[in-house]
Amino acid sequence: MIVEVAFSRLDPACRSASGRAVAVIDVIRATTTITMALHHGCAGVIPVRTLSEARAVAQRLGGGAILAGERRAGKAVGFELGNSPAEYGRERVRDKTVVLTTTNGTRAFQAAPGAQAIIACSFLNAAATARWLRGTGLDILIVCAGTHGRFCLEDAVGSGMLIDRLLCISDRALELSDAARAAHQLFATYRDDLLGMLRGCEWGRHIIHKGLGADLEICAQVDLTDIVPVMHKDRLVAEYT
Amino acid sequence: MIVEVAFSRLDPACRSASGRAVAVIDVIRATTTITMALHHGCAGVIPVRTLSEARAVAQRLGGGAILAGERRAGKAVGFELGNSPAEYGRERVRDKTVVLTTTNGTRAFQAAPGAQAIIACSFLNAAATARWLRGTGLDILIVCAGTHGRFCLEDAVGSGMLIDRLLCISDRALELSDAARAAHQLFATYRDDLLGMLRGCEWGRHIIHKGLGADLEICAQVDLTDIVPVMHKDRLVAEYT
Repeated sequence: MIVEVAFSRLDPACRSASGRAVAVIDVIRATTTITMALHHGCAGVIPVRTLSEARAVAQRLGGGAILAGERRAGKAVGFELGNSPAEYGRERVRDKTVVLTTTNGTRAFQAAPGAQAIIACSFLNAAATARWLRGTGLDILIVCAGTHGRFCLEDAVGSGMLIDRLLCISDRALELSDAARAAHQLFATYRDDLLGMLRGCEWGRHIIHKGLGADLEICAQVDLTDIVPVMHKDRLVAEYT
Repeated sequence: MIVEVAFSRLDPACRSASGRAVAVIDVIRATTTITMALHHGCAGVIPVRTLSEARAVAQRLGGGAILAGERRAGKAVGFELGNSPAEYGRERVRDKTVVLTTTNGTRAFQAAPGAQAIIACSFLNAAATARWLRGTGLDILIVCAGTHGRFCLEDAVGSGMLIDRLLCISDRALELSDAARAAHQLFATYRDDLLGMLRGCEWGRHIIHKGLGADLEICAQVDLTDIVPVMHKDRLVAEYT
């Protein structure tokens, strides 16, 4: 089973998605928020690229849909929810469909054309994601959202955590690319202080500067849930492992 | 002093080159070969993108120039030298100008437009490169050649070695980007077995498969020389630190 990592949605490694299972990782905060929403009973999350696309999709869905969007770490003007996992409590999202657009994370779901399966991974569901991926028997491409197409530490560490969980449960050898080996080593470096890593990385410092530091404590929770957000047509829905 | 790392010549981080000192790293093998050539008295190395451009430049320079090129790890057809540092002995290159084209490395020198200075770095001259860079007082962008625009382990580790040397000698704080921090951690992971890392990484295994494994022992030599290849107009020439 081949495991490749793209360190951003613009990484040419994304071109190797064809026929593979793709796990999108945006630890701060899109895939953490999506995982938390589904964990709290959200019916589905539709990731879209732009604010206008989000408005159009939510309008088409009518009253049942929640319009959610983030720009520059804050809630998009006129949107009901931002990209803070703390906003996605059970009472707010249960049985609702969320239309979500973020600067980097939701765009990463369109970065890997030809994928056989697309799922969302975060620290919250790394072990569940590994079990789900092993069940497919497919080669794996992990796509880090990154920041504006650039490497970011927290998504690389998240990739490494997923690879660590895959290595723990795999009954056959994993063929790790250079990027996958590097991500696994970076997880080993930071595994004992994930919250410190989140507070010290570039985007984490920006989130703290915006007064959203409490979100990082949510993003740092490891294997909180057995839910895997799996893309069916246009939306991510909960599957259990 | 800001230190940023682009993990390949296609990394958007290359867009931050303007006004900075750019250190290009292609451990296997272009910047190792360039450093070795200048260490052995080569008058200058002109890095070019294509085989035809190399032929044209060498022809314009006349008899004094050596035509060197690599494709698929081997010597380009009809070229005098390939990209093996073992080929660049003193008797072969002393006082000669080399026109060199390689698949990834020489193209990386064009990846960072607007740079204030461009130099070549490898394990062979990491400490010398760090001294040279500190002397400029400029912010730093390290550009890994990568492999076809993708992350490769050996260039990330080489970036980390250069950052390690910079941290050892810097009299003021370095501001490391996420990618720079990751590279430094990867160097710390592999520093005690650099040759093993070179033999195990993707491109290193390819080089061994091509029967060029002995080159990796040359690439693995650390701080062999005080020479820094510095770009002046179209060519890299030796400066001493």
